[in-house]
Amino acid sequence: MKMSKLVGDRFKERPADASVESHALMVRGGYIKQVANGIYTLLPPAKRITAKIEKILREEMDKVDGQEVLFPVVLPGSLWKESGRWDSVDNTLVRFKDRNNTDFVLGMTHEEASVQAVREYASSYQKYPFMIYQIQTKFRDEARPRAGLIRVREFTMKDGYSFHTSQEDLEQYYARVLRSYERIYARCGAPEVISVKADSGMMGGSVSHEFMMLTDVGEDSIVICPDCGYRSNMEAADSIVHNENTLPEAPLEKVHTPDTKTIELLAEYIKRDPKQMIKAVVYQRQKDGKFVVVFLRGDLEVNETKLRNLVGDEIYPAVIDEDSPVVAGFIGPVNLSKDVIAVYDDSLEGIDNLACGANEKDYHYVGLNLKRDIGDVKFVDISKAIAGGICPRCGKKSLTIRRGIEVGNIFQLGTKYTKSMHMTYTDPDGNAKTPVMGCYGIGVGRLAASICEEHHDQYGPIWPITIAPWQIQICCLRADDAQVKGLSDRLYQELQDKGYDVLYDDRDIRPGAMFSDADLLGSPIRVIVSPKNLKNGQVEIATRDKSVQLKVAVEEAVSAVEKLAADLTAAVNEKVPESI
Amino acid sequence: MKMSKLVGDRFKERPADASVESHALMVRGGYIKQVANGIYTLLPPAKRITAKIEKILREEMDKVDGQEVLFPVVLPGSLWKESGRWDSVDNTLVRFKDRNNTDFVLGMTHEEASVQAVREYASSYQKYPFMIYQIQTKFRDEARPRAGLIRVREFTMKDGYSFHTSQEDLEQYYARVLRSYERIYARCGAPEVISVKADSGMMGGSVSHEFMMLTDVGEDSIVICPDCGYRSNMEAADSIVHNENTLPEAPLEKVHTPDTKTIELLAEYIKRDPKQMIKAVVYQRQKDGKFVVVFLRGDLEVNETKLRNLVGDEIYPAVIDEDSPVVAGFIGPVNLSKDVIAVYDDSLEGIDNLACGANEKDYHYVGLNLKRDIGDVKFVDISKAIAGGICPRCGKKSLTIRRGIEVGNIFQLGTKYTKSMHMTYTDPDGNAKTPVMGCYGIGVGRLAASICEEHHDQYGPIWPITIAPWQIQICCLRADDAQVKGLSDRLYQELQDKGYDVLYDDRDIRPGAMFSDADLLGSPIRVIVSPKNLKNGQVEIATRDKSVQLKVAVEEAVSAVEKLAADLTAAVNEKVPESI
Repeated sequence: MKMSKLVGDRFKERPADASVESHALMVRGGYIKQVANGIYTLLPPAKRITAKIEKILREEMDKVDGQEVLFPVVLPGSLWKESGRWDSVDNTLVRFKDRNNTDFVLGMTHEEASVQAVREYASSYQKYPFMIYQIQTKFRDEARPRAGLIRVREFTMKDGYSFHTSQEDLEQYYARVLRSYERIYARCGAPEVISVKADSGMMGGSVSHEFMMLTDVGEDSIVICPDCGYRSNMEAADSIVHNENTLPEAPLEKVHTPDTKTIELLAEYIKRDPKQMIKAVVYQRQKDGKFVVVFLRGDLEVNETKLRNLVGDEIYPAVIDEDSPVVAGFIGPVNLSKDVIAVYDDSLEGIDNLACGANEKDYHYVGLNLKRDIGDVKFVDISKAIAGGICPRCGKKSLTIRRGIEVGNIFQLGTKYTKSMHMTYTDPDGNAKTPVMGCYGIGVGRLAASICEEHHDQYGPIWPITIAPWQIQICCLRADDAQVKGLSDRLYQELQDKGYDVLYDDRDIRPGAMFSDADLLGSPIRVIVSPKNLKNGQVEIATRDKSVQLKVAVEEAVSAVEKLAADLTAAVNEKVPESI
Repeated sequence: MKMSKLVGDRFKERPADASVESHALMVRGGYIKQVANGIYTLLPPAKRITAKIEKILREEMDKVDGQEVLFPVVLPGSLWKESGRWDSVDNTLVRFKDRNNTDFVLGMTHEEASVQAVREYASSYQKYPFMIYQIQTKFRDEARPRAGLIRVREFTMKDGYSFHTSQEDLEQYYARVLRSYERIYARCGAPEVISVKADSGMMGGSVSHEFMMLTDVGEDSIVICPDCGYRSNMEAADSIVHNENTLPEAPLEKVHTPDTKTIELLAEYIKRDPKQMIKAVVYQRQKDGKFVVVFLRGDLEVNETKLRNLVGDEIYPAVIDEDSPVVAGFIGPVNLSKDVIAVYDDSLEGIDNLACGANEKDYHYVGLNLKRDIGDVKFVDISKAIAGGICPRCGKKSLTIRRGIEVGNIFQLGTKYTKSMHMTYTDPDGNAKTPVMGCYGIGVGRLAASICEEHHDQYGPIWPITIAPWQIQICCLRADDAQVKGLSDRLYQELQDKGYDVLYDDRDIRPGAMFSDADLLGSPIRVIVSPKNLKNGQVEIATRDKSVQLKVAVEEAVSAVEKLAADLTAAVNEKVPESI
């Protein structure tokens, strides 16, 4: 590809709406063009990257016996009514009617479609196990698309669906796919992706894993125990709290605490450690607006995913006014309105002397002993794990919290979809059984952007050689110098003939502008042909990350590039784990 | 791929709703699974075919300097309002609102998106010409999806958009793409596709071509002159009629013609050749329901595309009742209501004595001379060309009519989109100019189905080797015979190692069932390993079309297959024209 013909502009200016580097660089480098909020056109460089990722995805899916299919983007609403998700999924799911007034949705995931595709086929145990996958456009009407390709509404996804006759068989296969995913990330040059235990959310099922690219700009929190290797996303992380009684037991006493609506203000006012206080966080549940108050230790936060699972419904932060059954800032267990669902976090168990709201403006209690004053309270784990907290696996106070971007997830779905959609098979004894399913997703564009997020400098992306839009960029520093141009042309031809993707900057522009553009396009290998070096019979070869910068004789240029390309490829491949 | 693991059922029964063979065979062979009316899941064999077609498309598009991009499926309504198509396209265009109540459409074609992608980039003449293309899902809410993948609502399309600084440059490039399309069809093993002049319809622009796969089940009519090579689709074909006066001029005379509502009945009743009669066909126009009566010679049909272009609006067959300004079955030019738009076809010019309706129940006129009795009538070409009609190019009475399936189209769009969407570039003199566009589409699934339509026998498809899901099928006729199984396994491995796509029927089933399935999957080369032949140290090798059937020594099996594959490939390639 010649730069003079490459469609897409490159800019110096950082786009005003870019909150993360990958977004800024991919706009500035002419990779993507916004069409609407969270909807992008992929320009040639981005399309080339995603094509390479998709090739890796296909190879790895085929290696775990996946068979590629193509489900529709537009799915009949009837299928989603069968599974129950027509009602259970919020307006992230786009619903519309066709010309015959029939309900349709835009596929945001394809469990229903996969069951529909195989439920007649897979009617005998002999057909199992099998896995089908596709690489296809999905649409989710996200409330807050952001960060370029990282959180979009329309995106290309590789999604696979496996079918099994037993949970054991699913688990065995699931482990193979998990390894296959590790291979995918490593092959894409992103070995820093880790798998973490996750909450299954709207997908259903029990066990699931997210694959997290660790990066400070990630919007997800990951709980990691460096001691034993425990990893979980925040939503699914157990929070274990060992309380200590630092205050002696005391009688319940109401105290006047004007203007102390927050834990911090109260702690200051009554001179108490928040660990000896009850924080109350108020939500309402979706279906009827009923108030749900979570009581937890003053220093902790609510894990809303756990609360959602406990309540069995969507929840949202409460809107409190004069008619509400609670008094904002002064909510506590004593004399709490009967119209409220109270939830007690594990972190309150065994503390003998707590401060808490008195359900009365400007008053709190001190000396609260839940068992003595409220009775047999049921404690549940509803708080977020914290840095320095207790690892649920090894029991040490070793937890660390990291940020990450989710770049894939896999689920053991069980029979959620096969059961609701009446898919059965006949076992060897002639009995009708329900198959169990797994599903496996990777967003292609998000993976590309996440890799950019971890692999860039201030000048642009530094693409791993396995997914770079072009492996090699040739910079012809003097297009008007016949010798320089002649050699550049020849190298362009020779390297292409050897099968490399080469971007050739043939423009008659200043070296500074040429290098800026090369930095933005991020080819891992750069070949610079200049009059100065050519006078010495040399060309310059460098890596985009500047770890290699060398001058080689003109006649050795091609072999030097080949060696460098082989080294860079080997460096990626040596981090790829074996298949299982 | 082992047949024992291949996802998808094969059936003996022809599906009840299949009107064409490709539909029946692709359902029966487990290629496609209907999800909703006109919406299909592609199962592994179909996905393999489309992947091969897509690879050919990419190679050919790259060869004409195309750069691959990816536009969104979901497009903001605002873009379609800019171009004017939000209003001008009927409800084939799916419109919906997102969660913020913003208008969106499902992309049915991407002219707007392509202009949006490049209108800032291509602001200088130096950036031209260029072409961007994508292979992406499209949705058109067709009123009558039919014939399996041939007329669907959701489909994968390769669509390209080129931008030029002059009509001449566009025309030059258009010729290159036209040749590139000929190469694509030939490479896919469908050299019988021809290009024909077409009407541009809702796309706008002047010159356009359709690519037609000639087949009797095609829903399009193509007008061909075998003498001079003139080719046009019916919509765009000029109809030239030379009238002869076979009756002498006569006075206008009203005659009682009870129950003669059709041309045939009237011809019978008054003993006249329909060529001496006026047929009246009544439409209403979309915007106000106004009646439009087309008068044409009794033996001809109305070309509704020409009428639509003449009226400048959508038209539909009139609904005639007692309040209508016309009398069904007896409509004629004399005393025609002023509330009706009358259109006279060229085929009526110069006939001195015509029969026509009297605008009165059960009465006709004879002896009508339009010039004498009606005045200066304006004649236009509004009729369909007919077999044996006059070729608009060479003037001979040589036209033939063939049926075909449209498998691609290309358009010279002019400035329709660039102008309405305010795309300009600066020419060398610093003046703002509007670029001209071309666009180029091929539906991937329809092409696959059309090739099946032309390349099949009663047992299944006969896929050209370049797009076959598997080039080779191995039939192991006795899976329980260790020797037969051993050789089959070895051939499977060896042929795969040589890079062939091999489908291996390893199932323990009857040869008849195995061959039926092999016929349905249509691999061009079949290798049959049976105990009987193996006793003689031989295996059988055959082509799916039965033109080759031979027994070769076991040790020569692989090389014989290689030779056959090379021959079949060469036979396809020798019909591929050179690029221009």
